[in-house]
Amino acid sequence: MKAAIVGCGLIGGSMAIDLRKAGWLTHCIGVDKNAKHLSSALAYKWIDETSDLENAVRQSDVILLAVPVKAIKTMLPGILGLVNDEQVVIDLGSTKHHICTAVKDHPRRKQFVAAHPIAGTENTGPSAAFSGLYTGKINIICDRRDTGLHAIDIAASMFRALQMKTIFMESEAHDRHIAYVSHLSHISSFMLGQTVLDIEQDERSIFNMAGSGFQSTVRLAMSSPEMWTPIFEANQQHVSRALGEYISHLQHFKKCLDEGDTQGMQEMMIKANEIRRVLKGN
Amino acid sequence: MKAAIVGCGLIGGSMAIDLRKAGWLTHCIGVDKNAKHLSSALAYKWIDETSDLENAVRQSDVILLAVPVKAIKTMLPGILGLVNDEQVVIDLGSTKHHICTAVKDHPRRKQFVAAHPIAGTENTGPSAAFSGLYTGKINIICDRRDTGLHAIDIAASMFRALQMKTIFMESEAHDRHIAYVSHLSHISSFMLGQTVLDIEQDERSIFNMAGSGFQSTVRLAMSSPEMWTPIFEANQQHVSRALGEYISHLQHFKKCLDEGDTQGMQEMMIKANEIRRVLKGN
Repeated sequence: MKAAIVGCGLIGGSMAIDLRKAGWLTHCIGVDKNAKHLSSALAYKWIDETSDLENAVRQSDVILLAVPVKAIKTMLPGILGLVNDEQVVIDLGSTKHHICTAVKDHPRRKQFVAAHPIAGTENTGPSAAFSGLYTGKINIICDRRDTGLHAIDIAASMFRALQMKTIFMESEAHDRHIAYVSHLSHISSFMLGQTVLDIEQDERSIFNMAGSGFQSTVRLAMSSPEMWTPIFEANQQHVSRALGEYISHLQHFKKCLDEGDTQGMQEMMIKANEIRRVLKGN
Repeated sequence: MKAAIVGCGLIGGSMAIDLRKAGWLTHCIGVDKNAKHLSSALAYKWIDETSDLENAVRQSDVILLAVPVKAIKTMLPGILGLVNDEQVVIDLGSTKHHICTAVKDHPRRKQFVAAHPIAGTENTGPSAAFSGLYTGKINIICDRRDTGLHAIDIAASMFRALQMKTIFMESEAHDRHIAYVSHLSHISSFMLGQTVLDIEQDERSIFNMAGSGFQSTVRLAMSSPEMWTPIFEANQQHVSRALGEYISHLQHFKKCLDEGDTQGMQEMMIKANEIRRVLKGN
């Protein structure tokens, strides 16, 4: 399969590496507005050549969009305007409803697959890409009924080649759920990082005291603001609700703490412990 | 060295395992109010025998307190009342000021070492103990001036045997700092877990969507409420302030989100990104 990868960073690069390994991808054209990313991708040999967007789209069986979600939404209608009957466009963005809405009535809608592979790290750029990022992870395809069989088949074979399990979901439900299990945890981590940095100031020594627990909780605070700002913007309504509920829980906990209501605190923590059962799927 | 370990769970057990391995600990008496923990510890062979507290204290060179902080504070004066001139008592609790205050004027204060090895996991009980928990981690000894040289020497040799690096700090400063880099991250994680569970309800499928980011951020929500309630209670003042600042940051972020102030959001995240530099010590 010949593919164009638009966005040669962690997401696009890790995909190219393993699709090549699996033999699914035989020729890859890289597109990126950052020339350094393109030369890195060439040096790493995930891409065979670089090109401008239009030329890359015209030459490829599959076009993968691995850029921030706002850019996906902006460029998608134009890209679909360039493709012939056989070509397939797959986006990999973390929000889906606004993207699906933007091309809902596009004459080439059937050739578009709205996907969200649930995988990533706090690192960005081509040097962050690695083999195995997607292995064993979940992929979500949204609004499947709007995609044609041919495009679904191509996308399914691609995510199978990455050893991912694909599930299907409405784009609206996707955005509502992902606000809680991904977007909220990023905000909680970003703000934890900022809170601790704010009081740190002249007391750098306190970071000697940071154990593995803090590092695990604050890891996502290292994520890319350029990537996450458009995600939060695109999913504003659901993220705002999730964040509001999170703040309410924290305020309730603080009230228990300040009033010496140890039983109240303990009950909240016991309830939170349930996450172990849920995440282990028991 | 002959030691009594009071509390045969993750903390006490992991310590016994590696102190034996290092040859520092030659005989170990286990004390625990939970009989199952004692029989597990015997079966795992970290302890050689079990005993009641008083008998264990009388027979040991070193008494290690690895129980919840409220229990440490309650039992410490009595334990110091039992020891002779040569014996050393070391507590391993996560809050230090209230414990140090409780024995400030105790005639045996010089034989007590207030320690906090910065290590742990979200798991509890003897089955959670493992070799290597402490290796390469930081240990904090508080209010060193109140401890005699003999006791400091014994404690220093013990933490060296565990391959830990010991730093010294006032107990009040310890509690203030640890509120941010440990206690706050536990609350942020507990409440993230509870928020997501609350909206989950009949939608268990959303946990299919939880990626490694969510799992990393919510990991501490699996921690023991029995252990953490007394910690938050003991460090109420500092934890409340840290939590208040965290809530303020989240509210500010929510305001930017709701007002479409993407630049404001992005600036907060860029600032939070600094945590990478700080944690990597650059």
